[in-house]
Amino acid sequence: MKNETFIVAVSGGADSVALLISLCELKRLKKLELEFVIAHFNHNLRNQESDEDSKYVVNLAKEFGCKLVVGNGNLSKKGNLEEVARIARYEFLGKIAAEHKAFGVLTAHTINDQTETFLMNLIRGSGPEGLSAMKQVRQFSEKLEIPLVRPLLNWAKRVDTENYCHEKNIEYRNDSMNENLKYSRVRIRKILIPLLETFNPKALQTIAKTASLFQFERSENEQTLFPVTNELKLSELVNIDKLTLYALLRRWLALHCGSLRGIGLKHVEGIERLIVSEKSGREVELPRFQSVIKRNGFLLFRKQNLKKP
Amino acid sequence: MKNETFIVAVSGGADSVALLISLCELKRLKKLELEFVIAHFNHNLRNQESDEDSKYVVNLAKEFGCKLVVGNGNLSKKGNLEEVARIARYEFLGKIAAEHKAFGVLTAHTINDQTETFLMNLIRGSGPEGLSAMKQVRQFSEKLEIPLVRPLLNWAKRVDTENYCHEKNIEYRNDSMNENLKYSRVRIRKILIPLLETFNPKALQTIAKTASLFQFERSENEQTLFPVTNELKLSELVNIDKLTLYALLRRWLALHCGSLRGIGLKHVEGIERLIVSEKSGREVELPRFQSVIKRNGFLLFRKQNLKKP
Repeated sequence: MKNETFIVAVSGGADSVALLISLCELKRLKKLELEFVIAHFNHNLRNQESDEDSKYVVNLAKEFGCKLVVGNGNLSKKGNLEEVARIARYEFLGKIAAEHKAFGVLTAHTINDQTETFLMNLIRGSGPEGLSAMKQVRQFSEKLEIPLVRPLLNWAKRVDTENYCHEKNIEYRNDSMNENLKYSRVRIRKILIPLLETFNPKALQTIAKTASLFQFERSENEQTLFPVTNELKLSELVNIDKLTLYALLRRWLALHCGSLRGIGLKHVEGIERLIVSEKSGREVELPRFQSVIKRNGFLLFRKQNLKKP
Repeated sequence: MKNETFIVAVSGGADSVALLISLCELKRLKKLELEFVIAHFNHNLRNQESDEDSKYVVNLAKEFGCKLVVGNGNLSKKGNLEEVARIARYEFLGKIAAEHKAFGVLTAHTINDQTETFLMNLIRGSGPEGLSAMKQVRQFSEKLEIPLVRPLLNWAKRVDTENYCHEKNIEYRNDSMNENLKYSRVRIRKILIPLLETFNPKALQTIAKTASLFQFERSENEQTLFPVTNELKLSELVNIDKLTLYALLRRWLALHCGSLRGIGLKHVEGIERLIVSEKSGREVELPRFQSVIKRNGFLLFRKQNLKKP
């Protein structure tokens, strides 16, 4: 896809600015040979502030030598504002992508967006489908058969994008609506997630991973991806991707333990470390006196007798 | 199963006391012709308070004329205390059930337990299996092939059991460990759930239903339970149970909307009301200018053109 054009959605916030400057950096280093067109959509929801965001993105585009298209929203105040804004923004992105015969569209969604969306849907009660994660790559829309790609989704936190901008000495804009507690997404970000982090400091990542596992669970071909054997051969585990590995390990543990009650991400991550570590004979303890050990190139499941001598 | 024996697990808390008195009430009214044996397990974790709980249950059993068996725990302080206590308690229940040749075991889990467990597992990261609900009926254990039944699980909140005890003028015990914020389950109950209820006053029920839907999703036979047709015949919808109906409606909506993005429990509940209401021609609005209407004995899906005239 050398020299193909990608549309990059840039609001001016830390996440999209970090995405843009990292793409331009990769291009400068000749690791990517692509053309980027910045698409900035002014929702016109915050009057002067919106206009200042647009001016900021105009300057950013100049600085990085990128083509820029600015769209202007004239949004209906009826209905769910977030939903109305999203629809208008994606219509704009689709239009620009079609006009530029783009190969794909890039957005700067982070782990935070994944977890916030999961929690919004959980609280609202949208059921298993709503809790299934955003995908890193999906078709842009029914009509437009190009990929929508979210390169940061599975690994970058919002704070990482802020730090990256600071490191590169590039300012970004702060959307005042992101501070307004009348929006439930803002309360999720500023109150709920910090509370969840008092239970588990990694709650943000944990919930995003859970959402990814749901998405994986729901993909039709999971059942046929891998047969689960009694012992797992290490050499067959080292090269599969993380999500597949986690799903495989979870199924393998479920098979041996009867259920996954009490078994958490930390256990699966422990087994993952066991797989990649150099030492042999190490062990991951599981609840109910069960464990997984590594021996002679295999992972073995061990269950101790519940009765103590 | 006339005159069969059921073991009723009674801690002395509002939930198990409410379960017991309602069972005895049903027996007195001859709506149930069963024998109940109260099983009370003293975990011996709270010294004098534990003993007072036991005395209280002894008196309760006398008052209601039920057989009572009291077990005494001598728990290891190693490991996860909640888990250790649970294992010991269920071992005791299984032993008593076997000794009495019981037909089943009843526990007083409520909607609150369902939601608290879901949130505990979500925060801990136990993946889709952990988020799948407790079932209302399951086999007691691998060894003991009798049902464990949780009659209150799908409809009673903890506060309902408290109110029921008050109405019946029967006291219950308050476990001081249920007030101790060092336990994450207590913080979930006293801090997290009240916060979630500021987003959605029905968060407790909503999350419990979500957990039930996951459990249903995961049951193997879902795919074959019902074919989804283009229009849904009302006469075929009125007699199926709620969970099946919800799953069916969600699949039907997903088929028509492309995905379930933006579609929540309130929409499904709205359609449920549409099904049972007497009036015809009514409509449930969905996001993105879509709706479901009732006409001539069928549910129809309607999508309006997004462009306004």
